[in-house]
Amino acid sequence: MADGPTINTIAERAGVSIASVSRVLNGLPTRQETVRKVMAAADELGYVRNAVARSLKSRRTHQVAFAMADVGNPAYLAMLREIQPVLKAAGYRLVLHSTDAVVADEIDVLHSLGERYVDGLIMSPLRVTEAHLEMLAAARAPVVIIGSVPEGTRVDNVRADSRTGVRLAIDHLYSLGRRRIGMINGPLDTVPGAARGAAYREALGDLGLPYDEDLVQIGDFYRAEGARAVGELLARVPDVDALMCANDLIALGALDVLRASGRRVPDDVAVVGMDDTDLAAASWPSLTSVSLGSAERGKAAAELLLDRLQGGDREPRVVTVPPRLVVRASTCPEEGGTA
Amino acid sequence: MADGPTINTIAERAGVSIASVSRVLNGLPTRQETVRKVMAAADELGYVRNAVARSLKSRRTHQVAFAMADVGNPAYLAMLREIQPVLKAAGYRLVLHSTDAVVADEIDVLHSLGERYVDGLIMSPLRVTEAHLEMLAAARAPVVIIGSVPEGTRVDNVRADSRTGVRLAIDHLYSLGRRRIGMINGPLDTVPGAARGAAYREALGDLGLPYDEDLVQIGDFYRAEGARAVGELLARVPDVDALMCANDLIALGALDVLRASGRRVPDDVAVVGMDDTDLAAASWPSLTSVSLGSAERGKAAAELLLDRLQGGDREPRVVTVPPRLVVRASTCPEEGGTA
Repeated sequence: MADGPTINTIAERAGVSIASVSRVLNGLPTRQETVRKVMAAADELGYVRNAVARSLKSRRTHQVAFAMADVGNPAYLAMLREIQPVLKAAGYRLVLHSTDAVVADEIDVLHSLGERYVDGLIMSPLRVTEAHLEMLAAARAPVVIIGSVPEGTRVDNVRADSRTGVRLAIDHLYSLGRRRIGMINGPLDTVPGAARGAAYREALGDLGLPYDEDLVQIGDFYRAEGARAVGELLARVPDVDALMCANDLIALGALDVLRASGRRVPDDVAVVGMDDTDLAAASWPSLTSVSLGSAERGKAAAELLLDRLQGGDREPRVVTVPPRLVVRASTCPEEGGTA
Repeated sequence: MADGPTINTIAERAGVSIASVSRVLNGLPTRQETVRKVMAAADELGYVRNAVARSLKSRRTHQVAFAMADVGNPAYLAMLREIQPVLKAAGYRLVLHSTDAVVADEIDVLHSLGERYVDGLIMSPLRVTEAHLEMLAAARAPVVIIGSVPEGTRVDNVRADSRTGVRLAIDHLYSLGRRRIGMINGPLDTVPGAARGAAYREALGDLGLPYDEDLVQIGDFYRAEGARAVGELLARVPDVDALMCANDLIALGALDVLRASGRRVPDDVAVVGMDDTDLAAASWPSLTSVSLGSAERGKAAAELLLDRLQGGDREPRVVTVPPRLVVRASTCPEEGGTA
């Protein structure tokens, strides 16, 4: 908005107040002389022409929705930060939904596309159910899904590669001499939980390490749940020497519990998180984390949706953002200090 | 949404697919038998009655906007986290604007209330200018301002008390024996910058400490700017023993520079941030911070706006949320470990 004519510049050119410009452009009763001045200034600055051009594109709302699973999770906030400016630069308002990963809420968001309150939707579901797929097929506006969808789903799709990401982390821990590597995961019926659990098992196998069920603890993708899960694992396997956590919030919970139990990080237990959120660099000790490119995924999703809104029909596209291991103090003391 | 009837429950009751329910409720061509089943199930579940009741309240968009200054600042994200569920529970969608604290953008948001794309607006401007006040007086939908507005402004208003907050921090540092207390501030032409700078000077005066211009460095409310400002202060005043930072991002920048310069926190320099964001508890060392109640302010703003939307005319209200000092390792090692 800062580039085109604004009501500020119109007010300045017309020599009237900003409120007067607002009244005129909104069609409210105003003195004839003021109307004349404002319309002349708006014409000179090209403002009216834009407004008319906009209204001619009928049935457009100039709004796009982003349905995020959890407004408290920094990974989604990192997406939001990239989505917002891309849409704003293209003249779209952003409508924000937080679904708390409740399937019925996500289905309702897809359903309400029928009301045409937005021109398109970016959605980041934790689980993609049959109901999702049915609604996607019937969706009345373009949708981009951030996350994994079944093969053959006809939808623009931005994916992370958490399988390769987990492998990067396990290889790193192995190279540091760790052999009792635990996994703290979220629910296995979520897409990330299932993918990360399978990747952990696969990575151990490729390194010739045995898969030990005692080393795996399922909790949920939150700090308090992560802490609880690590407490249970430590009680069962006191000699664990590394923890692969399925996201940064779980890893922060792990640091809390390890600190409280008198274990040094990384000397006694090395910790790796996932998502490389802002919290990872700020944590104590700073947290080695697998970046799944949240920011890049948000940006790619916004660009895919804009392309669809501007270009119309084309084949659905899949964009996969590669992972990256960011090494910090929770595995390598020299990278920033230890507890 | 999870409480009322959803298209999921209607589909189940009617024994048809979710997509069929969606088609019927959106008025798309569907087999007569399906339409009959869906309408019967929707009637039984009270869904249609709700939809009709909604549409009868004409000229309502069921959308509310939140215009935040910076989508990257955790203080605003803390507000967003509280605003979103309050609005969602009341049946409002949230439209998100990020203005980057550009006055022209904020004025445009106020102006566009005339298009009635939302029923109300929550705005958190860094600066409240004459142009803001003029537009607020002419606003065509209810507005709640989070931040300080001039006395007599007729608008619902939620305020922090950063003056008392700074005093809590300076008193704390003084009680720890610190006497060379520096201040790293944001721009003085912002409402928080001006208030926090004045509060610092006043708090020193009340403690009988001299005000030394060399101990004050102006930067901006970001981590990199904070780091730069602390670097300049250290070069000028190497014996500074405490830093009062005007927000947590500045304080994180301070920790970066102090660590790089070989100074121990808090032994050599104690550091206090402001806003008590998630980053403060996760930082290394964990950061003592003044909570200005971002979450409480977001919640209060959403509730004020809902009250206005539901209750109509009443006198404008001012809600002031009291500050709270959260002591952590960056001033007291026993609160969680030192660098």
